[in-house]
Amino acid sequence: MRKKDGVFIGVDLGGTNIEAAAVQGGQILASKKVKTKAKKGAKGVIKRVEKVSRTVMKRLDAQPDDFKALCIGAPGAVVLETGVVSSAPNLDWEDVPLAAKLKDRLGIPVFVDNDVNIGVAGEHAYGAGSGVEDMVGIFVGTGIGGGVIINGNMYYGSRGAAGEIGHMVVVPNGRACGCGKRGCVEAYASKTAMLKVIQEQLAQGRKSVLAEMVDQSSLVLPSSQIAEALDAGDELMTEVLREAQFYLALLTANLVNILDPDVIVFGGGLVEQLGDPFLQPIRETAREYYLQQTDAEKIRILPSLLGDDAGTIGAAVVAQQRLRLT
Amino acid sequence: MRKKDGVFIGVDLGGTNIEAAAVQGGQILASKKVKTKAKKGAKGVIKRVEKVSRTVMKRLDAQPDDFKALCIGAPGAVVLETGVVSSAPNLDWEDVPLAAKLKDRLGIPVFVDNDVNIGVAGEHAYGAGSGVEDMVGIFVGTGIGGGVIINGNMYYGSRGAAGEIGHMVVVPNGRACGCGKRGCVEAYASKTAMLKVIQEQLAQGRKSVLAEMVDQSSLVLPSSQIAEALDAGDELMTEVLREAQFYLALLTANLVNILDPDVIVFGGGLVEQLGDPFLQPIRETAREYYLQQTDAEKIRILPSLLGDDAGTIGAAVVAQQRLRLT
Repeated sequence: MRKKDGVFIGVDLGGTNIEAAAVQGGQILASKKVKTKAKKGAKGVIKRVEKVSRTVMKRLDAQPDDFKALCIGAPGAVVLETGVVSSAPNLDWEDVPLAAKLKDRLGIPVFVDNDVNIGVAGEHAYGAGSGVEDMVGIFVGTGIGGGVIINGNMYYGSRGAAGEIGHMVVVPNGRACGCGKRGCVEAYASKTAMLKVIQEQLAQGRKSVLAEMVDQSSLVLPSSQIAEALDAGDELMTEVLREAQFYLALLTANLVNILDPDVIVFGGGLVEQLGDPFLQPIRETAREYYLQQTDAEKIRILPSLLGDDAGTIGAAVVAQQRLRLT
Repeated sequence: MRKKDGVFIGVDLGGTNIEAAAVQGGQILASKKVKTKAKKGAKGVIKRVEKVSRTVMKRLDAQPDDFKALCIGAPGAVVLETGVVSSAPNLDWEDVPLAAKLKDRLGIPVFVDNDVNIGVAGEHAYGAGSGVEDMVGIFVGTGIGGGVIINGNMYYGSRGAAGEIGHMVVVPNGRACGCGKRGCVEAYASKTAMLKVIQEQLAQGRKSVLAEMVDQSSLVLPSSQIAEALDAGDELMTEVLREAQFYLALLTANLVNILDPDVIVFGGGLVEQLGDPFLQPIRETAREYYLQQTDAEKIRILPSLLGDDAGTIGAAVVAQQRLRLT
């Protein structure tokens, strides 16, 4: 019996922060967060991942080989089999062999997955989707990411590209999306999309409390500012949010008609900020678009439960699952 | 060892015909087709199903209890667990306990499933999707039906309502669909949708060879007439078909971005009539909308192989699968 049996190291690698945690059965035993410092390049960032992971291990009075595996969530496209991060724009990475490099440094099995998949795995194992067979996770942020759980397992598809629900086209030849196509849900319901509409409206002289928070050069719309404008009863913000909710409802209904899941979990900063009231109009509108109305209430549309911890807890879940498959 | 081990009875129950077949390993050993005569009511139709099934059995010199199971595909919504057809508009059926009634008559296990699911199961086992893990079937007819295969098995979802891909909304507040909602793919790409556009254009005085085949009271647009008009180089038919193909391409791309399947199989009378050339523009346009372009060619978009036999062969496949689960 190994010393830390059942404890896995989960790492959430973001463009801004790296957080590592030792996780057992969905509980964080120890954790540490540091800045990513992406400008140091892949080698520098990987060193920082090693360091923060070792710090967490030491807090449990343990060494790397006391743990059976580590899993790290990366903000981009990942080749699951090799653990290579093929592209992560926020880190300015291309084809970085993250798993191999970390394994060399730590001497234990290392798995890599996309950060959204990992968040969905966490919510499925210990969060809002705990115990269900079939689930879809929808993460609303600067983009719209997603992940699909089928028969209790993360579903990757034939090329590992499943779950890209933010790029479902819902308006033929519609708004330009960051992905280069037109009419994707992400171009209507992400925070980036909301910001663009707000900037256009402000440029046209629309009155709004947002004028004090946003200017034409703003690149992000913090969830806290969205909440502040809504609290102030701002008409523009209310309109823009309602539009986003409408498209998220269409996305939800389209997913229900294809996958008929037990649960759809909404996560991301905006959902955490606004909570369940953000989901209520989505639930109501989505349901109108379900083809099968029988037992419509059985499909639960829920806010995420793990919040920021979904990254590390989810990574630990994936570490355990992937280890079982090797 | 039973006499007909490995041979299952598959029945395709449609609004017009009932076809029964004895199937072994994807091969039809004997089959018979009769008119449904839906006007006789559920009891009359069930009697006819019994009779045609017994005829097929006799052709193999066998009795019902020489077979381990029968499965029947019904044109409507089915409760899988009970084998009740909850609604089949073409038969004017509501809550008909089809499995129980047939079991009483034949004395062997009887399973019921939706006809589209059964066609998809057949194409997956012995047709265009043979041997793949993940597949989506798209059947284009008077409506647009579908089915999803995940990890080699038919995927039903939490309420048995998965695969209703024809009701994916792709135009917010768009054309009215037969389902009562607006903007579904079915309202743009089914034969019913094509017919409506043709009727509108003819009413506006548009010149077309279709004027000789279609009038304002037509309820169906036979695939053979579509082919005839295309062969004549008819401009209206070409336009209408191109629009349908565009929406089928969006549907395909949306399914690829969510499910990343190995294969998407297109079936139904129109696809059989027009063959692979019908799919080529769908392939090309869909691919432009894939989020992940890497290995895009790995996702194969194929016409169905089994044609009319998908119903009976698929039913036999489902009989075998369901028997294994009981």
